[in-house]
Amino acid sequence: MISHSGNVFVLSAPSGTGKSTLAKRLVQEVSDLDFSISFTTRAPRAGEVDGKDYFFVDNPTFDRMIETGGLVEWVEVYGHKYGTGKDWVMSHLATGRDILLDIETQGAKNVHAAIPDAVMIFLIPPSAEELSNRLRKRGRDPEAEIKVRLDYARHELCQFPAYDYLVVNDTLDRAYRDLESIVLATRLRRERMGRQAEQILQGF
Amino acid sequence: MISHSGNVFVLSAPSGTGKSTLAKRLVQEVSDLDFSISFTTRAPRAGEVDGKDYFFVDNPTFDRMIETGGLVEWVEVYGHKYGTGKDWVMSHLATGRDILLDIETQGAKNVHAAIPDAVMIFLIPPSAEELSNRLRKRGRDPEAEIKVRLDYARHELCQFPAYDYLVVNDTLDRAYRDLESIVLATRLRRERMGRQAEQILQGF
Repeated sequence: MISHSGNVFVLSAPSGTGKSTLAKRLVQEVSDLDFSISFTTRAPRAGEVDGKDYFFVDNPTFDRMIETGGLVEWVEVYGHKYGTGKDWVMSHLATGRDILLDIETQGAKNVHAAIPDAVMIFLIPPSAEELSNRLRKRGRDPEAEIKVRLDYARHELCQFPAYDYLVVNDTLDRAYRDLESIVLATRLRRERMGRQAEQILQGF
Repeated sequence: MISHSGNVFVLSAPSGTGKSTLAKRLVQEVSDLDFSISFTTRAPRAGEVDGKDYFFVDNPTFDRMIETGGLVEWVEVYGHKYGTGKDWVMSHLATGRDILLDIETQGAKNVHAAIPDAVMIFLIPPSAEELSNRLRKRGRDPEAEIKVRLDYARHELCQFPAYDYLVVNDTLDRAYRDLESIVLATRLRRERMGRQAEQILQGF
């Protein structure tokens, strides 16, 4: 178990639900919240930058990190490996800053095991129809891939009981406001605010 | 124990912390959130309306409610009794609407005992100095009364470990946003959202 002072937020969602857009907006607009940058063995997509979107590494490098315990979690999806670097997480938690992990349901389980008080948030599409519309509109994947993604979405959605919060991404602004509320409310929990309350109390 | 479907939010704060202002704004601006109206034996202050600010009752009436179990909680403060009507709470919870209880720390404990998953929020002043400034500026109480209120504030502040969330009312807008976040986040908890998630999942 990793001891820490910052809050860890885990955000999972089926592909096409709008997770990346919302996660980016969260770290941009909410103060003291840093994005976790995952390691991956998949090739960069157009526009993706190493060290910003992901740390792109080859298979032997990734496997060495697994062997040496350098990853909080890792998972293989569509034949590619994704993992969260332990050093990165630990150094950020130690400063008291919050971190946001944008992560698959399988990896999320492993993070929860390593960091039991991580706040688990699951973003879900308003309906199966809406999700398949969005995947097609995005135009990034061939039809066969969309079928695979919808099947995998069903599998992922079944994991919702493992999460603390469920946010339906019906409209982006509403979903953003919901996510922001979860982050702000978490910071107001008594176990996080107790020290400040003690200090105020001492003035009386 | 009372079974219910709506959420119960309990808001406590030392006198002068801005609780009433914030509570009023919450029920005005947040949808599906109703204010609990307490019964009290104290006389109406200027501008207070029976059935809106409080239900003003005499001592024998209040005592009969205690005896017949008609109150979720009741408390005596400054020689006056305040209580929450069980019928009012139960009928609102049954409709699935959320309710906000603006209540003293002692009464809050009793609500928590009756409704264990009530969300307990404690509003605290930024400092003892700021609270005494606010009480004086309010100009409603003589100096001796202010001393009593500050002493009682210290007593109430010691109860903070019984609360789920602590909100410091430094600036009113920030405190409002914090309270709103707690309400919105609570509605997104998996145990509240599970049915909707199940319905979405069935479409896949």
